[in-house]
Amino acid sequence: MRKVLVNWEGVGQDNVGRLARYAEVVESWKLDKRSLEAALPEIDAALVLSWPGFMSREGLGGMTRLRLVQTFMVGVNHVPLNDLPASVVVCNNAGAFSVEVGEHAWGLLLAAAKKIVATHTLVRAGEKSFSAFREERDIKVLDGKTMGIIGFGGIGRTVAGYAKAFGMKVVALNRSRKKAAGVRLLYGRKGLELLLRISDAILISLPLTTSTDRLIGQNELGMMKKDAMLVNVARGDIVDRAALYSHLKANPSFRYATDVWWFKEGKETLETEQPFVGLPNFVGTPHTSGPTSLAGGAPQREAVDNVIRFLRGLKPRNVVDRSDYKS
Amino acid sequence: MRKVLVNWEGVGQDNVGRLARYAEVVESWKLDKRSLEAALPEIDAALVLSWPGFMSREGLGGMTRLRLVQTFMVGVNHVPLNDLPASVVVCNNAGAFSVEVGEHAWGLLLAAAKKIVATHTLVRAGEKSFSAFREERDIKVLDGKTMGIIGFGGIGRTVAGYAKAFGMKVVALNRSRKKAAGVRLLYGRKGLELLLRISDAILISLPLTTSTDRLIGQNELGMMKKDAMLVNVARGDIVDRAALYSHLKANPSFRYATDVWWFKEGKETLETEQPFVGLPNFVGTPHTSGPTSLAGGAPQREAVDNVIRFLRGLKPRNVVDRSDYKS
Repeated sequence: MRKVLVNWEGVGQDNVGRLARYAEVVESWKLDKRSLEAALPEIDAALVLSWPGFMSREGLGGMTRLRLVQTFMVGVNHVPLNDLPASVVVCNNAGAFSVEVGEHAWGLLLAAAKKIVATHTLVRAGEKSFSAFREERDIKVLDGKTMGIIGFGGIGRTVAGYAKAFGMKVVALNRSRKKAAGVRLLYGRKGLELLLRISDAILISLPLTTSTDRLIGQNELGMMKKDAMLVNVARGDIVDRAALYSHLKANPSFRYATDVWWFKEGKETLETEQPFVGLPNFVGTPHTSGPTSLAGGAPQREAVDNVIRFLRGLKPRNVVDRSDYKS
Repeated sequence: MRKVLVNWEGVGQDNVGRLARYAEVVESWKLDKRSLEAALPEIDAALVLSWPGFMSREGLGGMTRLRLVQTFMVGVNHVPLNDLPASVVVCNNAGAFSVEVGEHAWGLLLAAAKKIVATHTLVRAGEKSFSAFREERDIKVLDGKTMGIIGFGGIGRTVAGYAKAFGMKVVALNRSRKKAAGVRLLYGRKGLELLLRISDAILISLPLTTSTDRLIGQNELGMMKKDAMLVNVARGDIVDRAALYSHLKANPSFRYATDVWWFKEGKETLETEQPFVGLPNFVGTPHTSGPTSLAGGAPQREAVDNVIRFLRGLKPRNVVDRSDYKS
């Protein structure tokens, strides 16, 4: 019987039970170090949240039966792709968080547009005069404006639906040619530049890969409208940190709202060299959009479904194209 | 020729020009006290933002030609209805801010659901650990939940549209029998109680009148789900302040997000007896949803349109039913 390693204590026992119909389930946190090491050579598939320490390059060397790595997350930047032999298929959990992350993205956009965080912070600090805010011409209405979506996967499509309900025109940068009603699709570098120039609000919703690392730098920020709003729910490093900080300082009407932060030594961190959180035109939530929804419901189930697909001999979905991540 | 008093310096000259085709326009801030007093007896209609000091009970006594008061705002709680003779028709600006206030309401709801303000505040205060937030099971997904709308006018209908786009079921408390697709309409006290019990998110979007003053008190808060989210974009005093504070303290999962604040000596104030802004389950913006959008665009134009309707001998819209405000 095949063996599936699950490396996340938060997995529901209902999902463990579903896997157990097709394989023996090894719950890593239940084993001591020795038993775990003994089990590794027999593992056929691994289902992981963060990357397990025992699956270092050395540990992987002994996992000769491993054929599938399935992540609970969408991003696979924590997976050591270079250490995994070509015989291992890596699948992410794309699409599983579309609603959770899409809703969060829309909350960030409205928080920026309506200055919800900035004004709440001032009231909390003791501002008592309404007129201090009523001079404020800087509250933005979305209706009638243009929403630009960079990366038109599950999250991008979800947000496009919200944007249409809010009376916005929608343009989206896409790789595939799959159409969507009421959305103008753009392609390639020229498409990106057009999107940056015409959009009032911009969403970043594509994976961090070799070609999207620092996709938005000084040059691209300069193409955007002076009072554009940029929302990031993908990965921090898609935006050049130093260029963004300078841009926010120089353009008080420009706004950046993010749920994702920059990597430091391979790990996302809330510590930033530049003091972003002190800027009134910066809104940052601590990557709460996806992970918190893993606890229950669809995202967890969908990752398990894909492992079951593999165990049944079917083609798994969401196979990662490793060439996107070549360094 | 008839005379229209405009008592707001922020009015656009395009709108003054439109009024001038039908009447002589008296711009109060351009006159000295004596000239203004001399003009009052000849004023047929007054277009006001806040209530003018010179239109005190005494000042009104001399305004014998006055037949129309038109407010730029939707709420008329600043208008001294008891001092105005029955011959004066009072019109508010209902509907003019539906999009602005509706968008703001949705921003407040998402800020509460996703804890955008609360988590941003913690990050800003120096929290550096993602895991401090990932234990957080308290990020709410709107998709599939029930939205309850108390007051189904322009703002309520706008928000119902957003709720449907977010995959929510919508129920609304209404006075009229005008239907709306995909919305379950409820009526009267029983309808209110049902709405309070079944809704995950609740919007207050009805005027503050004698019968809605403290409509939501201890009793009504107790009927709501323990982790419901209550959003107020109408008037602070529709919610009993002391009862709300106790409820927020006793139920950390319950959330209140508001753009409107309680009255003190007849004026809305950011000073509250209870320290709401220090609570993690309270989000408050300083009434930025409507007033800020007056500067340009539709809301201002619609108030002027209604005065023109009156000047042309047509029936003005949005006539206030004074019996709603009897004290």
